[in-house]
Amino acid sequence: MRFTSEQRLDDDVVEREFTLGDIPGILWTPASASASAPVPLILLGHPPLGLGTMYPRLVGRARQAVADGFAAATVELPGSGDRPRLAAVDRARADMRRAVQAGEPVGDETVDALVLPLVEQAVPEWQAALDALLALPGIGGPVGYSGGVISLGIRLAVVEPRIAAAVLFAGSFVPRSMVEEARRVTVPLFVLLQWDDEGNDRQAALDLFDAFGSEEKTLLAGMGGHTGVPQSAGEAAERFLARHLS
Amino acid sequence: MRFTSEQRLDDDVVEREFTLGDIPGILWTPASASASAPVPLILLGHPPLGLGTMYPRLVGRARQAVADGFAAATVELPGSGDRPRLAAVDRARADMRRAVQAGEPVGDETVDALVLPLVEQAVPEWQAALDALLALPGIGGPVGYSGGVISLGIRLAVVEPRIAAAVLFAGSFVPRSMVEEARRVTVPLFVLLQWDDEGNDRQAALDLFDAFGSEEKTLLAGMGGHTGVPQSAGEAAERFLARHLS
Repeated sequence: MRFTSEQRLDDDVVEREFTLGDIPGILWTPASASASAPVPLILLGHPPLGLGTMYPRLVGRARQAVADGFAAATVELPGSGDRPRLAAVDRARADMRRAVQAGEPVGDETVDALVLPLVEQAVPEWQAALDALLALPGIGGPVGYSGGVISLGIRLAVVEPRIAAAVLFAGSFVPRSMVEEARRVTVPLFVLLQWDDEGNDRQAALDLFDAFGSEEKTLLAGMGGHTGVPQSAGEAAERFLARHLS
Repeated sequence: MRFTSEQRLDDDVVEREFTLGDIPGILWTPASASASAPVPLILLGHPPLGLGTMYPRLVGRARQAVADGFAAATVELPGSGDRPRLAAVDRARADMRRAVQAGEPVGDETVDALVLPLVEQAVPEWQAALDALLALPGIGGPVGYSGGVISLGIRLAVVEPRIAAAVLFAGSFVPRSMVEEARRVTVPLFVLLQWDDEGNDRQAALDLFDAFGSEEKTLLAGMGGHTGVPQSAGEAAERFLARHLS
């Protein structure tokens, strides 16, 4: 892990860009972190639109995480931003958009091709990032995962024992195999659902919530579309992480 | 409205029992209420088990409401506690219990007979209580309704313009006609659902949530049975009321 930039965002937040091999990432820490006890880490998930595009929303979430006493970090997804494209995923995305624009259902094969290769490649990368991040002074466990591609959150929660709690956003396509995988998730979960998300199958999201194996799981459904998560819902998710990681 | 007892529960809460005609009720106010600006009022709903039986849970919710800056009040439901029994409702309750014990579905007619007469009689009583409570020094609007028989909350939210926000517990039988009535509810709503509530039809609860006409409505579903609402869910409901009544 090599830091490529460092800036102080405000009195309390230090933002550092890094590369891990050829994967870019960003780490946000409290300015006072190295001096005090290690803080828990929240991995900020995001949709595959590139860190540059997602930066304004990510930095808002990161600032909140730091204010809550955490470090926050994220890495670029495979095929996004300046990373090499994933041709198969790009084709699946084009198929998906054609189906949505034609008002047709998005087929299972398209969903699988859109999501599964991304998850397969991203999971070991996020685990490598965890190795590097947790080796830094001032950052300790436990680790939370929050938001972004829900299938990545599901897979990480299943395979990565350092993830102690997860906030998942039921707002993206979920391969059927991931619903089965969800039964193996056991960490405390907080699932956000936008009740009227135009691009999301509400019943599929409810079935997925039902499938999670976690003894403690909470579903918070609010009104509004995909990007209209109410502030109060975001705050509830923050309190959930604070309760489980502090 | 005639006060029949008054006690100071702790430094901040005054509990007063009252009767309104022949209907008993309880009012909890901040000890300092009359000296300062009027506080908003939360009507505490409860199941038809009698105020005596429900007192321990009610006083806990009332203490929290007062700590949040509200007054809280409740009145005995028709047919409960020391009030005259409602023979038809008692028969419907016996039918309901027979069906549940036999593992059979509870019929629509039984649900109607169990709930509708209770709501019909209770609504004007709760409105009369509101008249009397809001005339007291130290208590002002807006008014919130929280918990208890969900159909009473729905009807009050529809007919009583002083109700500005409601927390509803999707944990009791709901007549089909009340689902239609739910479409006429427009105040901000926070609906609690126990995902594994053994006595509750989850799909019916989700359909009811979908039916509410409110632009702002939130569903919080947690794990556990009917009486196992997690503390964090109760706190989320309190924050909802604080946001809308303060």
